[in-house]
Order: sequence, then C-alpha cells, then structure tokens
Amino acid sequence: MIDRLIHQIEMKENPTVVGLDPRLDFVPAFIKEEAYESWGKTPKAAAWAFLKYNKAIIDAVYDLVPAVKPQVAMYEQFGPEGIQAYIDTILYAKEKGLIVIGDIKRSDIASTAEAYADGHIGKVKVEDEAFEVYHEDSITLNPYLGYDSIEPYIKHCKDYDKGLFILVKTSNPNSGEIQDLDLGGEKLYERVGKLVSDWGKELIGKKGYSQVGAVVGATHPEQAKRLRELMPHTFFLVPGYGAQGATAKDLAVCFDKNGLGAIVNSSRGIIAAYKLDKYKKDYSEKEFALASRQAVIDMKKDLQGAFA
Amino acid sequence: MIDRLIHQIEMKENPTVVGLDPRLDFVPAFIKEEAYESWGKTPKAAAWAFLKYNKAIIDAVYDLVPAVKPQVAMYEQFGPEGIQAYIDTILYAKEKGLIVIGDIKRSDIASTAEAYADGHIGKVKVEDEAFEVYHEDSITLNPYLGYDSIEPYIKHCKDYDKGLFILVKTSNPNSGEIQDLDLGGEKLYERVGKLVSDWGKELIGKKGYSQVGAVVGATHPEQAKRLRELMPHTFFLVPGYGAQGATAKDLAVCFDKNGLGAIVNSSRGIIAAYKLDKYKKDYSEKEFALASRQAVIDMKKDLQGAFA
Repeated sequence: MIDRLIHQIEMKENPTVVGLDPRLDFVPAFIKEEAYESWGKTPKAAAWAFLKYNKAIIDAVYDLVPAVKPQVAMYEQFGPEGIQAYIDTILYAKEKGLIVIGDIKRSDIASTAEAYADGHIGKVKVEDEAFEVYHEDSITLNPYLGYDSIEPYIKHCKDYDKGLFILVKTSNPNSGEIQDLDLGGEKLYERVGKLVSDWGKELIGKKGYSQVGAVVGATHPEQAKRLRELMPHTFFLVPGYGAQGATAKDLAVCFDKNGLGAIVNSSRGIIAAYKLDKYKKDYSEKEFALASRQAVIDMKKDLQGAFA
Repeated sequence: MIDRLIHQIEMKENPTVVGLDPRLDFVPAFIKEEAYESWGKTPKAAAWAFLKYNKAIIDAVYDLVPAVKPQVAMYEQFGPEGIQAYIDTILYAKEKGLIVIGDIKRSDIASTAEAYADGHIGKVKVEDEAFEVYHEDSITLNPYLGYDSIEPYIKHCKDYDKGLFILVKTSNPNSGEIQDLDLGGEKLYERVGKLVSDWGKELIGKKGYSQVGAVVGATHPEQAKRLRELMPHTFFLVPGYGAQGATAKDLAVCFDKNGLGAIVNSSRGIIAAYKLDKYKKDYSEKEFALASRQAVIDMKKDLQGAFA
C-alpha cells in the first residue's frame, strides 16, 4: 500500500491528502434542500447530502491528488446511514483511483482489535463466507494500549497489502499534555515514534518506507523535525496545515531530501474552499467543487514553494 | 449518570457489568441457523444473530446487574447493520432499566470529538431538528491526545447527565509498553490518572464520585491500588476479570471502604458461559441464557467473598 501511495504522489507530483470531513455547515444549500425534500431533516438526509457533496469534490480533485482521508466521526455521528455514506464515499474514491486513508483512530486490544482490523482493512467472516466491509487502504490508530492493540492490524497489512498511520504527535493545542511528557532524556512522543518505527520494520516497501506510518502534526515543526530524524523509514501523515495554522514552511521538515516521506492533509481549506474569502468572489455556491479544485492547485503550489 | 449507576449497584448489591461483546463463535447454533435462513451467511445475518443473542442474555440477567457494556468493535466490523444491532442492543438494555456503557475508546480532537460526543452521548442536529443516535449512558475514551480531545464530552456529561470512563491503565499484556513509562518519580499511568481526576472534578455527584471515571485493569493489582489512592473521587471500570486472568482478590483494591468505587466487567465468562466446562454439564445450548444468569450469580458471590 505504501508503494502505491508513493507512486500516486510521484505521478501527481503532489503530497496532498484531501480530508473528507463533511459538516452540514459546509454542504451547499442546494444539496441540503434536495436531501431534505427526499428524507426530511433527518440523519438519513445528512448522510445522503454528505455523499453527494463528497462525490462532487472527488470528481473535481481526483486527477490532482493521491489520496483522500474521510474522518469517520463525521459519518458515525449519524448512525447506520452515516456509516453507509462513509463506506460509499470510500468506494467512490477508490473507483477514481484514489488511495483512501480512513481516519478512525481506533484503540483496543486482542479480539477487539481483530474485529476492527477485519472490518476495516481485512475481511469479516460469516461461516465460510468472507466480506470486505469498509474497504479503506489504510487507517489511523492510537498507540496508548501498546503493541497488542496494533498487532492484528500489522498482520492484515501483510495479508491484504494495507497501511497504518499511528498517532505519534498530534496537531491539537493540548497534544503536549501527555505526548510531550519527559521520560528523562526523551519525550513520550519520541519514545512512541521509536516504537512505531520498530513495529513497522518488517513492512518496508521498495521505496524505503514502511506500511506502518505515523501521524505527526505540522503545528509543532521542531518536534516533527526530530521525529523525521528518529524515524527514517516511517511515512508521515501530517495534519494541521491551513485551518489549524501550520504553513508549508512549518511542515517542510516532515519530508526527506527527495521530497518524499509525508502526505499533508487539508480538510476544510479544500472541501469548504467556496466559503473562504479567497475563493468566494470567484466561485458561487453551485461551483463549490471548482473552488475545491482551485484550493488543491493553490496548496500544491504552496507546498512546492516551501521545498524549493 | 454516576449517581444512577451507584444506585443500581446498591439496589442489586452487585458491581458487575456484563460485557456484550458477541462473536459468532459464542452465538448458539439454533440462533445462527435462523439468521442464515432469513438473510444468508451475510453481515446482516450476523447482526441479527447478535441482537437476538444479546436480548436473551439481557432478559436473563437484567434483574441481577446494574449495567451492560457493549463493545462497539464487535458490531462495527459488520458495517451499518452491525451498528444498528449495537444501537438496538443499547435501547433494549435501557428498556430493562440497565445503565449502558458503550465501549468505544474513541480519541480525536476539536470538531471531530464534538461529532463523536454529539452522536454517542448528546444529540446530532440537522437544521432545527435534534436526534439522539447511539443512546449510551456512558462511553469509554482514550486520553492520548490530551484535554481538547475530552472537553466536548465533558460538556455533554453536564448537559445530558452522561458519564465517561477514560483509559488510564488497561488490562492487556503490553499495556505497560507506554502506560508504565517512567516520568522520573511517577509512571505515565499515574500522571494520566491525575489528569483524569482533574478533568472530572467539576462533575462530582452526591455519592462522592465524578461522572468522569477511569478504566483500570484488574490484571495489575499493585497499580490499581496506587490509582485508587491517587483518584479517590474517580469511579473505576475494571476489565480483566475471568477470561483475562484477574481474580476477585486482585480487584478488591479497586473498591473503597464502603465497597463502592468500581464496576467489574466480565464478557465471555458470562455471555458464553454455556460453553465453559463449569456450566456445560448443567445447561444445554438452548439454555445459554440461563447459564449466563448462573455465571452472574457465581461472579457476584465470588466478588462478595473477596470483600468479606
């Protein structure tokens, strides 16, 4: 999976992942109205509107970006119909040749982790029948429970050519509360980084990166730089660009000398671009997907500028 | 919520929570056959079988236990229909007067955490309409991202009278890999324990315990003892009894001098009791729910014996 991702990044000359984190505030009124006419103001209508909105954005950007990252919480909150929209979004993105990173941040042990792993990146079995359910190419995980909470997924990475991005240093303001704790000579996030690197060492692909990646926030450049040194074979999924305040310069440290090694997420800066001052004079609400396309083009330029 | 939970524990003189973590291996053949006849060997059949199985167990134990804890992974793996079975299990348990702890172990930040909080313990809004979706009374969370990943849930605890159990020290063999790291004078799980205690200090109920509880594994009695001292106002959800190897004596340290302060989970030891040597001579597969009832009675005695 990591080689497929890198191939997509190289082909599209773009390390941007589009965060498909829909909110009803972001969805244009004409889509919501259509949804409410059919289903009333219900979770089902919200789920339908999310899928319609996502498909239009995917159509507008799939030739420019290597991957999308749907955030499951946005769908899960609306119950079974939301989950169906999450799955349908993934299937649609894959039809368009995109790599899909499911931002699920699950954390559980033993048979429970196996259940998540089977459902998301493996197959669930019902007697002699086996089903792919969520279809992600890669998912995010939380490491707090230690290796036995990760092992079932590692096995599936091997068996089904899938990938992981494990939380090391997150982009939120309070991330340091636990992640920056001092272990005497090193910080917790450094130790976790070493563990993640170690967990992935059997799964290094042709391009020198492991199927087991790390989430490293762009809002903490010094720490990201340190982690890049500590984890030379670990691909980074980098949140925090744009809406959360990190600039292209901040996150340049996440890349290696060949301009590889990281994929940078932007969610609302792309999917809700038509609502930003920068784009709303040129794009009407009906043209929301074109605004997203322009935002992707602008972000690509911004990232390339920082590496020049 | 914590006062309601304690009231149920006192009324039923039993601090047992039944872990509703169904697996197809556990579900009696006659239920599975009925499911496969209607829906084929499909995720839908698995979801239907789980709900039927859970309802029979709830019917057999609801007068004896204060709470149930469905593990969402077991349902989520089967997709939207699994999620519907999770919700229907919760609604059925609540009809029977049980407190429901959703074992979801979510971890995310800002607007994402809000989406989880709205869906699980609050209300999701679709314009001017608001919907309860998952209906849990309480949920489990992972603290690795720090306070901004917890805050939206705390707000909902206040607004909707709900509860949380935040992972502090888990019961799995590798839990120490990160949780036991030495911060120089204290261990990481102790620091996290203090944070959890602090996060809950505005939400202490009439019985002296906060709506913000902690997950503290029974498989590490010395550490549980230390946490009980550090966190006098924090209610513990204690996994690890039975199948994972902890005995009633091991977990006695989780309780206060009044025999309160903790609720002890058992999953397969109760829900799959009819498969255990101890019960299978007295209960046929058809009588699986009666075996679960007997397992609850035996566990209650075992716990009471350890406190005597």
